[in-house]
Amino acid sequence: MKILHIDSGILGEHSVSRRLTSAIVSQLKADRPDAEITYRDLASERVPHLTGAQIMAPADLEGVDAALAADVRIGRQMLEEFLAADTVVVGAPMYNFSIPSQLKAWIDRLAVAGKTFRYTEAGPEGLAKGKKLIVASTRGGHYSVAPASAMDHQETYLRSVFGFFGITDIEFIRAEGLNLGADQKQFAIAEAEKTIAEGNVLKLAS
Amino acid sequence: MKILHIDSGILGEHSVSRRLTSAIVSQLKADRPDAEITYRDLASERVPHLTGAQIMAPADLEGVDAALAADVRIGRQMLEEFLAADTVVVGAPMYNFSIPSQLKAWIDRLAVAGKTFRYTEAGPEGLAKGKKLIVASTRGGHYSVAPASAMDHQETYLRSVFGFFGITDIEFIRAEGLNLGADQKQFAIAEAEKTIAEGNVLKLAS
Repeated sequence: MKILHIDSGILGEHSVSRRLTSAIVSQLKADRPDAEITYRDLASERVPHLTGAQIMAPADLEGVDAALAADVRIGRQMLEEFLAADTVVVGAPMYNFSIPSQLKAWIDRLAVAGKTFRYTEAGPEGLAKGKKLIVASTRGGHYSVAPASAMDHQETYLRSVFGFFGITDIEFIRAEGLNLGADQKQFAIAEAEKTIAEGNVLKLAS
Repeated sequence: MKILHIDSGILGEHSVSRRLTSAIVSQLKADRPDAEITYRDLASERVPHLTGAQIMAPADLEGVDAALAADVRIGRQMLEEFLAADTVVVGAPMYNFSIPSQLKAWIDRLAVAGKTFRYTEAGPEGLAKGKKLIVASTRGGHYSVAPASAMDHQETYLRSVFGFFGITDIEFIRAEGLNLGADQKQFAIAEAEKTIAEGNVLKLAS
């Protein structure tokens, strides 16, 4: 089993999403000690934004300057890691009602026609089928129920774009209301950790 | 009148959103030759992602290293430009069902408590009231009607986050289906340009 572990929270050791992805990956690893884990910290890497130059770069990178070639190669490597993974664990905090720009920049590198999707006469088809996606979703407020759910452009977005890539097994391990006081924060984290510890993640990834 | 003109499309001269923001700003300027225009190209600037270090930096930047201080100052300048503007014109192409990561990174610099929003006992309150926001929205497919509208995390997101900042006057000048053949593309651009030329933008910004 290959696990891809992605973090995007910018608050380092204070990041709840990092704490949760770490717990999820530990559970997976305890169950499958042979699992091969690839880790990417999109916050410390400062994954570069997509550019026109990257998209237009020739496949063999001939004549392309060193900085652009390195940038294209990073994107290709991210895509390969994603395609190779059986289970993808993504830490996705909500920042300003959406995902971190770092995480969007990573997703923009995955969205490559012929790799993660293609257009057919019957419509678009996702090509990254059969993977499990586990998202550690953290948010300052409560966005699970209406009317606040209309402000959720984080989980809804991830479901849309990874669904477009063909991933139908998407589980959210959620801790929300994290900015609503220490008690609520502690409660939300404990609940999420309980969900992870109870083996739900293992059932999901089995 | 102060106009803030923002582009985020990464395709340079091929960018339809740039073509539309340019037409919108030209109309506004023709009507109000005294308008003061501030322009930011988020794609060429490669606006940096939000980081924990920026958020945690002391207000007076004392003891902060030069790179981080420059980064914080860019964010503050972006926020000041936004707060000073009467009309904000944003070029917002849909990339992978959401906005460009560059545009998200800019929005993350605007979302500052006490500046664009605050929490009160009655709930959150937007502090950037009274502005007009005109979005040049471009997309490869058609996302205006169901079921495809469920994949729209671009216009819906912009409406949510700028609504949170207190902006209620939001107009979308839309060109969609741009990847569905040359005829459809030409038609969509012509329709959007007609909407702009007919003075709808002026009515909006008056």
